[in-house]
Order: sequence, then C-alpha cells, then structure tokens
Amino acid sequence: MARQLFELCGSDPARVFSPFCWRSRMALAHKGLDFDSVPWRFTETERLAFARHDKVPVLVDGDAVVVESFDIARHLDAAYPQAPSLMHGAPEPYRFIGAWTDTVLHAGIAGLIVTDIPPLLDDVDRAYFVTSREKRYGKALSEVTAGREDRLPAFRASLLPLRHALRGRDFLGGAAPDYADYTVFGGFMWARVVSPLELLAADDAVHAWRERMLGLFGGMARAVPAAA
Amino acid sequence: MARQLFELCGSDPARVFSPFCWRSRMALAHKGLDFDSVPWRFTETERLAFARHDKVPVLVDGDAVVVESFDIARHLDAAYPQAPSLMHGAPEPYRFIGAWTDTVLHAGIAGLIVTDIPPLLDDVDRAYFVTSREKRYGKALSEVTAGREDRLPAFRASLLPLRHALRGRDFLGGAAPDYADYTVFGGFMWARVVSPLELLAADDAVHAWRERMLGLFGGMARAVPAAA
Repeated sequence: MARQLFELCGSDPARVFSPFCWRSRMALAHKGLDFDSVPWRFTETERLAFARHDKVPVLVDGDAVVVESFDIARHLDAAYPQAPSLMHGAPEPYRFIGAWTDTVLHAGIAGLIVTDIPPLLDDVDRAYFVTSREKRYGKALSEVTAGREDRLPAFRASLLPLRHALRGRDFLGGAAPDYADYTVFGGFMWARVVSPLELLAADDAVHAWRERMLGLFGGMARAVPAAA
Repeated sequence: MARQLFELCGSDPARVFSPFCWRSRMALAHKGLDFDSVPWRFTETERLAFARHDKVPVLVDGDAVVVESFDIARHLDAAYPQAPSLMHGAPEPYRFIGAWTDTVLHAGIAGLIVTDIPPLLDDVDRAYFVTSREKRYGKALSEVTAGREDRLPAFRASLLPLRHALRGRDFLGGAAPDYADYTVFGGFMWARVVSPLELLAADDAVHAWRERMLGLFGGMARAVPAAA
C-alpha cells in the first residue's frame, strides 16, 4: 500500500489547510518520500479509529501508523536515517519551537483569520467548527476577528523572535531548512490557504523567508490554491 | 594558564548577574570544566581588547579566546566532544530559543527589574548604565519599572511557550538539561541576583523548573547571593 497522509481539508480536497498537517507534508517532502494525501474533514473521527486517534495528521507508512505531527517527524528520521535529517538526532530543542508556534503564532493567526474558515467547509463540518470555536472563544467568531487590520501591527511585533532567529541565515535550520522551519511555516500555510488577509509586510525578513519556503520542493506549497 | 571566564558583576564580584554570562557558566559546569571567574565591569572595555570585543562573556580556554555565549557553547561542544553534549551536534534550533529569550524573556524581565541594577554598581559603572539605558528606553528608569507588580500577570502570560515546552518533562532538554535550559535560565538568574521581585507564581511549572535548575551541579546557581 502506498504511504498515506490523512490531511484536513474543507469542500475542496486540494486546499489542505491544517498547520499541523503542513508540518508533516513538508517533512515528507524533505525526506524525499512520496505519499497519497487522504482528505479528511473535522467530523470524520470514525475514519481515524484505526489509528486510535481523532485528529490529523495521521501517517500510514507500511506497518506503521503514526499520529501527531511531532511524532511523525521523529518516525521519519528514525525510519529513514539515510535521507536528510529533520531534527538532527535531537528532537528536544524543536519542542520549544513547536510550543512557541502553537501558543503565540497560531493563537495570533487564529484571531485574525478564524472567520475565513467556515465558508470553506461543508455544512456538517461548518456547524461543528463554528459551535466548537465559539465555545472556546466564548464569543461569536465575528467578534474574534473584528478590527483585524488594526491588530496586524501587534501580530507582526509578536514575530520578533522569528525575525531575530533568521538574522544572517536563510532558514531557521541555517543554510537549509529543517523541522524548525516546517513547524513555523505550517501556520503561515494555514493562513495562506484560508484567508485573503496578508499577515506580513513586504519588507519583513519573515516575508522573504516565507517566499523561500513556498519555493521549496519545486514550489509544492505555492502550488496549493491560496485564498488571496 | 587556568581556564578563565570574564563575567559581568557590580561592586561585589560574587554577584555575577549577566544572563549571557550565566549561559556560559552553566555550560562549563555541564561539561564538567573548571574555570576561574574574572570579574568585569561595564566600563572596563579596554580589558577585553585582547579578545577584540567589548562585552562579556569572554572565555579564555588554552589558546582559544571565544566571545559571545552561543559561540562559547559551540566551542565547548567542539573542543570537548567526550563530555555531555550541550547542543547535540546541531546548534541551529537553539538559536530560536535564544532569540525568544533575548527578545521576549529578557525584554520582559528588564522592564520589571532594571531599577534594581544601579545600586549594585560602582559609581563609574552606575553613571554609564543609567545614561545608556535611559537613552535606550527614552525615559527615566523609574518610569520603566513603575507599577511593576501590576505587570507581573502579563509577564507570566508571556512565558506560555516555556510552560508548554516543559509539559511532561523536567527540562527543555528532556530528562536532562541542555543548552536550551541554560539559555532561558540565564534570564532568571539575572533577575534573582539583582532584584527582590519574585517573577513567578509558586504553582507555575516554570517555577518548579527553575528550582531544578538552581539545584544543578551541587546547587551552583543557588549558592550565588540572591537579592531577595
């Protein structure tokens, strides 16, 4: 059976938008591994019963079923040691980059784009998404993203650690990208696929880095339909 | 000649307080390397002319003169590969942790404790410090730390990535500390040595981690006089 990556999408299976799935998609490309993308929607939890999990990404790689993007990356480094390393033998420092991405970058992006997601979803998923997210935020999604253009400067300021880490180098991984880059880039792909809002100023070093990431692996990420 | 680490202090040479020097101090202990601490004050730039640099830490290790804490850690891993690794052969992901520490943690701490530093300094250093920092902030230092107790909740909230990265593990390095831990811990030692202000709530996982860090290497960090 071909390698399979279960990935979140909406009505259009080409528009994969989960930031965590993007981490795994880029990781597979980094390793030079082909895979079949299996479209998955929020409410299809029973389809993941085989993995004893209820979220994507899920990777099926031969006999291995691996859940959670971080563990997928570790699996790929362990199973394919001859391919370029994602985490250079020491996954621990990448956890902090993931923690910053989850708590600062994703939270910031969600507050700017969450209203752009429901229109991409089928009816059942849309109802689930709006209800669960409004419960999480404790308010209507329209209130979450209200005045978002005015909050862009604060969002951009929150990227200062990323900007500093990129000083004097093309990628967080140095001369070449590694799992640090894919971890952070997932958030920007999420925004790109679902929202027309431009998160970054054109003269931002993070913008230039994002362009380099979009161009990797023959422009794999750039080829996915963007919302803008 | 014995190994020497030039470290920032004020009137009391025992109270080394630079967060960057603490990174190097912990890194040397991690490697099991003895060193002589050479006290250095802000205005003694001519004493570092031999290193072609004007800041500490500066490490003199045999024929090697190494400046900048990150490069000192790289030097130690390269020169002492048989000792426990600081960065596991891949320094790049540690740069992001350093970038977050420099731009978020240190900036947050400085805004809470900067007024506690001048009383620790000799006259010449005090004048230099106050003038240069007031120029940087564009206001009196007393205005920088005004109402600091009221800003503690926001500071503690800014530590969320750290809190997440520590979930389920004792150290950022995993079961044992590594250079990620020393990078972040330097900021907390800076605060501990110069200020009586308690930055962390007692039930914060970051507090428990800081306690573990204070106990490393026979309680080396805890033994340095604290301001509180």
